[in-house]
Amino acid sequence: MNSPLTPTAAMACALALAAQAIGLTEPNPRVGCVITSMDGVPLGEGHTQQAGQAHAEVMALRDAAARGLSVQGGTAYVTLEPCSHHGRTPPCCDALIAAGIARVTVAASDPNPLVAGQGLARLRAAGIQVETAGPDAQAESEALNIGFFHRMRHGRPWVRMKIAASLDGRTALENGQSQWITGEAARRDGHAWRRRAGALLSGIGTVLADDPRLDVRLVDTPRQPLRAIVDARLDTPLSARLFEADGPLLFYAAEPATERVAALQARGAEVVCCPGESGRVDLAAVLADLGRRQVNELHVEAGPRLNAGWLQAGLVDECLVYLAPMLLGAGRGMAALGPLQSLDGAWRYRFHAQAAVGDDLRLLMRRAGEPAA
Amino acid sequence: MNSPLTPTAAMACALALAAQAIGLTEPNPRVGCVITSMDGVPLGEGHTQQAGQAHAEVMALRDAAARGLSVQGGTAYVTLEPCSHHGRTPPCCDALIAAGIARVTVAASDPNPLVAGQGLARLRAAGIQVETAGPDAQAESEALNIGFFHRMRHGRPWVRMKIAASLDGRTALENGQSQWITGEAARRDGHAWRRRAGALLSGIGTVLADDPRLDVRLVDTPRQPLRAIVDARLDTPLSARLFEADGPLLFYAAEPATERVAALQARGAEVVCCPGESGRVDLAAVLADLGRRQVNELHVEAGPRLNAGWLQAGLVDECLVYLAPMLLGAGRGMAALGPLQSLDGAWRYRFHAQAAVGDDLRLLMRRAGEPAA
Repeated sequence: MNSPLTPTAAMACALALAAQAIGLTEPNPRVGCVITSMDGVPLGEGHTQQAGQAHAEVMALRDAAARGLSVQGGTAYVTLEPCSHHGRTPPCCDALIAAGIARVTVAASDPNPLVAGQGLARLRAAGIQVETAGPDAQAESEALNIGFFHRMRHGRPWVRMKIAASLDGRTALENGQSQWITGEAARRDGHAWRRRAGALLSGIGTVLADDPRLDVRLVDTPRQPLRAIVDARLDTPLSARLFEADGPLLFYAAEPATERVAALQARGAEVVCCPGESGRVDLAAVLADLGRRQVNELHVEAGPRLNAGWLQAGLVDECLVYLAPMLLGAGRGMAALGPLQSLDGAWRYRFHAQAAVGDDLRLLMRRAGEPAA
Repeated sequence: MNSPLTPTAAMACALALAAQAIGLTEPNPRVGCVITSMDGVPLGEGHTQQAGQAHAEVMALRDAAARGLSVQGGTAYVTLEPCSHHGRTPPCCDALIAAGIARVTVAASDPNPLVAGQGLARLRAAGIQVETAGPDAQAESEALNIGFFHRMRHGRPWVRMKIAASLDGRTALENGQSQWITGEAARRDGHAWRRRAGALLSGIGTVLADDPRLDVRLVDTPRQPLRAIVDARLDTPLSARLFEADGPLLFYAAEPATERVAALQARGAEVVCCPGESGRVDLAAVLADLGRRQVNELHVEAGPRLNAGWLQAGLVDECLVYLAPMLLGAGRGMAALGPLQSLDGAWRYRFHAQAAVGDDLRLLMRRAGEPAA
């Protein structure tokens, strides 16, 4: 960590550090920071820690201090505008000012329209030279925090619907068998996507059919996301494996079926009532509740009926689809939609990214209107 | 065309010339040839013409002659072993020998096990130095001629099943609407794949539902492939648009329904009887017949029932799948297979290549056992 970095390389390092914070910092954004001397020699680096602990800037300042290096007159490269308000930790702006930092380069400004620019203004007011890193770094920082940005802008989580299917769109045979259509690499990759989510959501259909734990197992994780089950009549059996796994558990019901609520609470779960039409759960209300719980990315891993509900409500921001190179013919579909009378009614997305994962393909589709970042 | 080429560059040129012959040379392979002087200066180039006309080597020799350049002592880079037998044209070996070529580099040897190596032996016997170009060029030459190699080795065409579907595997709505799930770029790309086929095949279900012309329209083509319809009882109406399009037309029936045969013949079509089980057409017999007709690549563009027939017969070498970024829910599937009792019965392939085509994705899947080339 001794040869000088160009500003572009320093910000690339900061972005790589931010990526290391995935799965760790919920509900806080993933932020990285690199501090260099005036001539670019790296002095300290760090990324945001768990909520309530140090942010990236403070970690980088501590890192420099631990090395016995002075950051006086140096430059801080930060992937997100430093905070200027007292949350669970003191403002990072104040820490940078107090340390004598002379210049701050940020990749993206705060997505919260109420506080955007306040951190930069506070730094400028203290005589610090503030710059932005350019559109590429901004896009990468926003992509790393797609759910955080989405929640700050829209008040609800980014909804990612995960589906594993055969090439012909079958998620299970007619007899229910689905283990395994996709391979081990795809399943592990799916758990890496679970890890980065603020909450994992499934439905009573999947609970009864597959009895999932709905936790992060196939990859290491510093925390377990909140698990949420859409279960209109609270039919989840008390013997479900959901209760064996770690992490908070939340049921969304359509009506307050009191004796079931008590039984689920006795197993440590929370129950929230979101009554919708025709005895169903109001998914928009679920999303609003999860937004209030500061869930940035909601990972939906459900069956065709609940998938259809999310799609019909227009609430799916992204589809994460693993396709196995096989044909199954008859079987369970991705989403119990239609029949449509016209292709005008199709649920349209755009392909955002493709990758081979083991023998399978991972496709990412996003709303046609969403930015490419 | 004056600066010297390295041997690798010369063969790359020859392969690019061979690719220009796609759609032109059926049933002959796509072959390119570059002739250089002893020190690599290009003298002439060419690719195989229509069947019965000049092969690549002769075209390159003619090209050099037309430029007034002598190829005496030069090197010929040919993507496939020059022929040593009298077919519809004299042997290319003899032409190279007569022209005084000193060295020949070939990318791939003749796939026909009965004649493989004879061309090279004949060249060597005439004192020509013969070399092979290495595994990459060999793989590229074989990939360019995947159907020709397959037919020479197995006696039947390479079967490519083309499917256009929504991400959830729907090729049409329940009401039959399918125009258009994939976009214009994908449809044009599909016609480029039609162009390279020796024959296009569909079934009576598609004829009755979509009334296709089944020809090459959306891209320029020097010829129209043979069109083949699997129509067990010869139910194709004489008003079908099939009869309006150019190119030979062939019906595969399960039984010789004499009066229908005469009517179809009167419209210029040929009828072949391939009786199978339960009144169906024997698809293996169809494929053998198409092999005898020297079809290298068979492009199947059919409905779910006929697709299932090809898959169940184990005769699909490659799936060419266009996926549109939309979900349709209920609708027509890719292949009327199953229901399976176990995933062990799945029709398994491996992903071979992926590409974005307009807003859609093009996926190529091949048999798990086929070479990656």
